[in-house]
Amino acid sequence: MKDAPLRTIRLLVAYEGTRFLGWQRQKKGPTVQQAIEEAVARVTGERVAVHGAGRTDAGVHAAGQVAHVRVRTAIPSERIPHALNANLPEDVRVLEASDAPDGFHARFGARAKVYAYTVRLHPHENPLDRAFVHRVSPPLDVAAMREGAAALLGTHDFGSFATHGSEGPAASRPSRIAGRGSVRTLARLDLAERGDYLTLIVEGDGFLRNMVRTIAGTLLEVGRGRLAPSAIPGILAARDRRRAGPTAPARGLCLLAVRY
Amino acid sequence: MKDAPLRTIRLLVAYEGTRFLGWQRQKKGPTVQQAIEEAVARVTGERVAVHGAGRTDAGVHAAGQVAHVRVRTAIPSERIPHALNANLPEDVRVLEASDAPDGFHARFGARAKVYAYTVRLHPHENPLDRAFVHRVSPPLDVAAMREGAAALLGTHDFGSFATHGSEGPAASRPSRIAGRGSVRTLARLDLAERGDYLTLIVEGDGFLRNMVRTIAGTLLEVGRGRLAPSAIPGILAARDRRRAGPTAPARGLCLLAVRY
Repeated sequence: MKDAPLRTIRLLVAYEGTRFLGWQRQKKGPTVQQAIEEAVARVTGERVAVHGAGRTDAGVHAAGQVAHVRVRTAIPSERIPHALNANLPEDVRVLEASDAPDGFHARFGARAKVYAYTVRLHPHENPLDRAFVHRVSPPLDVAAMREGAAALLGTHDFGSFATHGSEGPAASRPSRIAGRGSVRTLARLDLAERGDYLTLIVEGDGFLRNMVRTIAGTLLEVGRGRLAPSAIPGILAARDRRRAGPTAPARGLCLLAVRY
Repeated sequence: MKDAPLRTIRLLVAYEGTRFLGWQRQKKGPTVQQAIEEAVARVTGERVAVHGAGRTDAGVHAAGQVAHVRVRTAIPSERIPHALNANLPEDVRVLEASDAPDGFHARFGARAKVYAYTVRLHPHENPLDRAFVHRVSPPLDVAAMREGAAALLGTHDFGSFATHGSEGPAASRPSRIAGRGSVRTLARLDLAERGDYLTLIVEGDGFLRNMVRTIAGTLLEVGRGRLAPSAIPGILAARDRRRAGPTAPARGLCLLAVRY
């Protein structure tokens, strides 16, 4: 095994974030990274790091997280999902695995990520999706929210929408978009209405810490009429977290896809 | 309170069935009926029966169960959902409440019920919906399943598709459709495909015990090529449970709506 060549395996991962302290391994409690690293160790005998594209926070879900791991195992890639899933808790599943080129890095190679933030507009929670949506009492002025969203689209300094640190590649790390500080580009920011649900779909080249949840929380303030959509440019310009709305709850957020 | 008039309150109820032994109160463990009856007792001080339209089995979910309760409380109906929800576990929610005519009975008055049975066609479970779908490995011949479904549409003796007993009104109970034995009419039996999911939508004037799950299990046998769609008429004619397919797992079933 020591002499077998190192392979880079790319994984497509889904998880319910409810009981996890987030993606990134830490000592205080269970994380998704740790669960996958332990499954990899049991299946291959190799104790290696699993790198995820997005370091999702506590309680945040993923339908399409991408991760990679460098291992020497001879297991064919198509058998890897079943082998890992047999060793994972039922709230984490590896949906696909494939051999990737040597230089592939799930995080540093990510060109864009797509997140969804889902709100249930109803006086009462729905027991069938309570773990995956943030309930808000109606009404919401969705037209005003769309106007606010339009002001966030494109390239801006999103410092007002970040708690601290960043979830995407940052200046201190090897990245093809190093040195950009808190400037990010949102290529898409749509609000989709369906029945009692409102879903904010955000695609960007990287996200600061809590950025999608702060965008969601700010647009909800706009929807409630507490903030005018015309206030958004001033909030961006201020680069002051206190100017934006609250951080919306983690349960409504889901990492949908990572693009390379 | 003793002198206040009896009101008939109609409730719209949703629940995740995972941890319940079903709708109907029993001594062996938690049921949805018991949870709601206890909430009604705490809110109104009245110990009364809550009658549900469909007596869903253990593990079956509901998005639109209808129930009624006869109480003397003076609480306005629009405040009842919040009051009950504050006394219910988070996997049960009363979504609406309204005063109904005296004679209203959630079960005996039901004209039709709509159920959905959802299958995930994928080699791996999705942690985000694992509680609500039955996973099946692809492929399935959906065209053959539709052919089989067409043979079940309309009025038939569904004895081959019933475990025993019935979930809808039966001959021994006061019902405007008494005496019909195991004859039921399915007005709708659609298969909707969406991404990796296949949902069977069934609307009928009543359902025998496990009838939707047995229809789902039988159509899955057709989809896998183990049963020809042309075998369905013979299975119906036999009125023998052993001729139909297996009872599909409870987690995939959800009571969507009840019509009056």
